[in-house]
Amino acid sequence: MTDFSFFNPTRVLFGRDKWRLIATESRALGIHKAMLLYGQGSVERSGLLHNVQQLLEEAGIEVLPVGGVKPNPIYEHALEAIKLAKEANIDAIIALGGGSVMDEAKGIAVGALDEGELWDFYERSRTVTRALPVITIPTLAATGSEMNGNSVLTRGEHKYNFSSIHVYPKLSLLSPELTMTISLKQQAYAAVDAISHIIEGYFTKQSPNFLMDELCEATIVSIMRATEEILANPTNYEPRAQFMWAATLALNGILQSGLDRFTFPNHALELPLSALFDIPHGAGLAIVIPAWMKWHWPQNPEQYSRFGRRLFGVDAPKKVIEALEEWFAKIGAPTRLTHVGITHNDLPKLAHLAYDLAKLRGGMQTTYTPEVCLSILERAL
Amino acid sequence: MTDFSFFNPTRVLFGRDKWRLIATESRALGIHKAMLLYGQGSVERSGLLHNVQQLLEEAGIEVLPVGGVKPNPIYEHALEAIKLAKEANIDAIIALGGGSVMDEAKGIAVGALDEGELWDFYERSRTVTRALPVITIPTLAATGSEMNGNSVLTRGEHKYNFSSIHVYPKLSLLSPELTMTISLKQQAYAAVDAISHIIEGYFTKQSPNFLMDELCEATIVSIMRATEEILANPTNYEPRAQFMWAATLALNGILQSGLDRFTFPNHALELPLSALFDIPHGAGLAIVIPAWMKWHWPQNPEQYSRFGRRLFGVDAPKKVIEALEEWFAKIGAPTRLTHVGITHNDLPKLAHLAYDLAKLRGGMQTTYTPEVCLSILERAL
Repeated sequence: MTDFSFFNPTRVLFGRDKWRLIATESRALGIHKAMLLYGQGSVERSGLLHNVQQLLEEAGIEVLPVGGVKPNPIYEHALEAIKLAKEANIDAIIALGGGSVMDEAKGIAVGALDEGELWDFYERSRTVTRALPVITIPTLAATGSEMNGNSVLTRGEHKYNFSSIHVYPKLSLLSPELTMTISLKQQAYAAVDAISHIIEGYFTKQSPNFLMDELCEATIVSIMRATEEILANPTNYEPRAQFMWAATLALNGILQSGLDRFTFPNHALELPLSALFDIPHGAGLAIVIPAWMKWHWPQNPEQYSRFGRRLFGVDAPKKVIEALEEWFAKIGAPTRLTHVGITHNDLPKLAHLAYDLAKLRGGMQTTYTPEVCLSILERAL
Repeated sequence: MTDFSFFNPTRVLFGRDKWRLIATESRALGIHKAMLLYGQGSVERSGLLHNVQQLLEEAGIEVLPVGGVKPNPIYEHALEAIKLAKEANIDAIIALGGGSVMDEAKGIAVGALDEGELWDFYERSRTVTRALPVITIPTLAATGSEMNGNSVLTRGEHKYNFSSIHVYPKLSLLSPELTMTISLKQQAYAAVDAISHIIEGYFTKQSPNFLMDELCEATIVSIMRATEEILANPTNYEPRAQFMWAATLALNGILQSGLDRFTFPNHALELPLSALFDIPHGAGLAIVIPAWMKWHWPQNPEQYSRFGRRLFGVDAPKKVIEALEEWFAKIGAPTRLTHVGITHNDLPKLAHLAYDLAKLRGGMQTTYTPEVCLSILERAL
């Protein structure tokens, strides 16, 4: 158990129809004029956007709806939204959508109170010191963004992130039934994404941590079970609820507490894939994780055996990785680069971009050289 | 997964020597004059009290040391401390000690800003609306008080509690090495207490919850393992750290989230024991839990089998309860009322006091009648 600090001031209201509390809760937070940020239109089609906007307006809160957030949210779109936020003098951002909407909302919340270049924070040349309050109403559980300080944006071929206590949502209204509107493909990617957040620390930490191993395995086994139940019966509330809270817990800091010098190699390897080829982050992770594991397991074979015994009833690291890859395929995720149209020729560039990300995150670049990144990605062909 | 809200605004700094941050952190919180609350003198003897006071004073913070908090903290002592707090116009309470010190600190924090009868909050005739900021430096991990809003005090034969968002510690400095000063007996009681916080919801919830079952079992198995390692090697830091964080997580709200109509029967049954006979709370729980389980298991036999398979490799509920009782005995906790000098003649009064507590907590008094409480306690003889 290495030293750590834990501080997660997000208030969560969890349950059916909790999104309907948006107006009373926004008023209680003293909000007068909110940007209502959303994505590609599914919340328009479902009527949710209209309903949220109406609730807010009936409560006397002015609403500035801003749509068009992409699944891999684009820096330039955030800049446009920041311009609108400043012109309209909004005092909060309400994110209605998945991880991309929540992540971009955090970028806008920072940019709205800043006169410099927003990208500085993603490049880590400046540190966030303030932000507008963010409220989230997730329609997809996967990224954990509803209960952490992370924001990822894509600028050209770079998909970078920052993390700050100032953008933890003040409030997240988690209504599991909202996630029933997403496709089963998206649900599979969501499962891989949530699992990936746990796997990173679980396998890369530099000292044993029995408590965290146990808690991580408990969460992964629950995510897997809930995913299978959702795919078998998509309109059943209970597995949606189990999945949503498990995905939130996967990256709200608890499962990372006390882990010794852990890193996020799978995210460094994946982000260039979704940035360059605009594939879903979860799909990219399902491809990268088994490849990374095939390269990584000799560094910590016992951890792989432990993982396999607990989750798949197998012991040998190679069998464990095979079982995970098969499970990704079973739920409908791609597991090879060729499944998403990426070929051998694309790998050097992807490897170099992954190395760029490794350089941004302390302690990774000596291990994840361009050569190592290339060698891992080759295993994913 | 039933509807729930989760909000835990306590900031935790965890690791060796974190208590030394008390002065800089107190200044950052704007504290000028703090009550430094402690217990029966072990922090005086170890020099910790002196060191903390010195750090604070060197940073220009006035300190009002108040000692004498008992292991089962006494209402009248809290009232005296409140009087001192008001006279000295203190602006924060720093709790240096175990759960009793932290719990009493919360009561003082409320009373210092209130002109009415403090007991109202424990009797639940009034609700807390404000409190002075509380900071904790635990020297014992067990109650979870360092990261929740609970406070338990004893007044005569009544040991009651309240819970409020206003008394969540603003900051808790968790230094696992401080817990090395407690006796191994106390460590055993601490283990039982931490486990009891998980067991209550795990067994009494009214609907299945796979995620919570998994997380609860993960935490209990970690507490048990860490306890055995501590008892075998009391000066080893790592199991102390594992135990401390696990005990905090046991009652910080995560493991209770989404549990359907759960109750705290073992606490209702135990609190009269520690109130009337001044035995340690954890010792009382080690006696009550197996007795309660022997009465309760037919209501949910599958949960007992699940628990037993995961923790002891046994399946039949009676065997499972036996295994837990044996484990309590193995670590050095009493498991029968007679072990602490309580006899058959004491039971009617204890049963009635337990029923009084059941009445205070919604939904328990129809099940836990004086007759049922008596019948459970008889199993503990």
